[in-house]
Amino acid sequence: MSLFFSFDGIDGGGKSTQLKLFCQWLSDQGRDPIVCRDPGTTAAGEEIRKLLLAADDSTPIAPRSEMLLYMAARAQLVDEIIRPALKAGRTVVSDRYLLANLVYQGHAGGLPVEAVRRVGSIATDGVMPDCTFLLDLDPAIALARMGRQLDRVENRGTAYRERLRVGFLTEAAGSNGKVHVIAANRQVDSIQQEIREIATKLLN
Amino acid sequence: MSLFFSFDGIDGGGKSTQLKLFCQWLSDQGRDPIVCRDPGTTAAGEEIRKLLLAADDSTPIAPRSEMLLYMAARAQLVDEIIRPALKAGRTVVSDRYLLANLVYQGHAGGLPVEAVRRVGSIATDGVMPDCTFLLDLDPAIALARMGRQLDRVENRGTAYRERLRVGFLTEAAGSNGKVHVIAANRQVDSIQQEIREIATKLLN
Repeated sequence: MSLFFSFDGIDGGGKSTQLKLFCQWLSDQGRDPIVCRDPGTTAAGEEIRKLLLAADDSTPIAPRSEMLLYMAARAQLVDEIIRPALKAGRTVVSDRYLLANLVYQGHAGGLPVEAVRRVGSIATDGVMPDCTFLLDLDPAIALARMGRQLDRVENRGTAYRERLRVGFLTEAAGSNGKVHVIAANRQVDSIQQEIREIATKLLN
Repeated sequence: MSLFFSFDGIDGGGKSTQLKLFCQWLSDQGRDPIVCRDPGTTAAGEEIRKLLLAADDSTPIAPRSEMLLYMAARAQLVDEIIRPALKAGRTVVSDRYLLANLVYQGHAGGLPVEAVRRVGSIATDGVMPDCTFLLDLDPAIALARMGRQLDRVENRGTAYRERLRVGFLTEAAGSNGKVHVIAANRQVDSIQQEIREIATKLLN
């Protein structure tokens, strides 16, 4: 049976670590997953990702334009990678997906959330995760965890980060149980254990 | 009074020539226009344009992704150039706009036209041309006129070009008189004369 998992949440919540451990566990069970990151993975998607990260004063990107670039990368990812993988019965694991757009550009970024959702429905062509793990953490703790230089999106202040958290939790609450809120202020193993328990119910 | 004009139609219809003459005429009347091309003009838009034109077998771009990239370039163009220019009372002239997406990716490209229109409404934030000049020509004649190497989009065959023409004419018919069909199988001066007459009514 094909299943589509995604990981999301604010940076510094341990998303990448948990995704890696989860994919290792899937492999150990003989379910070699197709792993992708959104935006990215495809050639066009990686070019779009570069464009998004390169935005600065000399190449400004307006909020609607930013949102549409993420959507373009996602449409390519769906057609080139995710849909074919699911059709072939594979398990797909994505680092972020539409949820991030709804929260970063919508709830926290000021674009109307329902407009982002409408574009998202067209961009994904209805291909949505069966299960999303939302790693939830106090933004102040997440920030302290990040020892590296912040990028353009990360460097937007406390109020913005708080809106991100509230946005993610609001979307989870309206997701009919598809977005699982995972408390990320715990030991790595304990978090991974909870993720595996949720996945096990879906996989069996 | 600010006015927003756009030129559109299949390649080889004389769009660029007519746009240039029209802008010269506007300048002669003391209405120095803001001229732009869509996709393009802004730094981000030109990067997106490059990405669209570079698409090939090693960097494929799916139809929905292509449409969304055009929309991203347009959102940037609206926020950075068109809306500020119109607010400042300037005349804006654009080489292509949303209409091209409706026709190339929708009517001719196979995406649901209403989906493209919904995304377009969000991407443009409602900023639409007051008047569009659609240069209409038999695709076979247009093709013969183009002496240069065809690009990826141009190189799609006769049936596709015919769908383009029908798409443009269908959109013009439903535009409440905003899209003016200009027969392009005539002398340059005669076409320009008709364009100026239509514009004069709006400008006065």
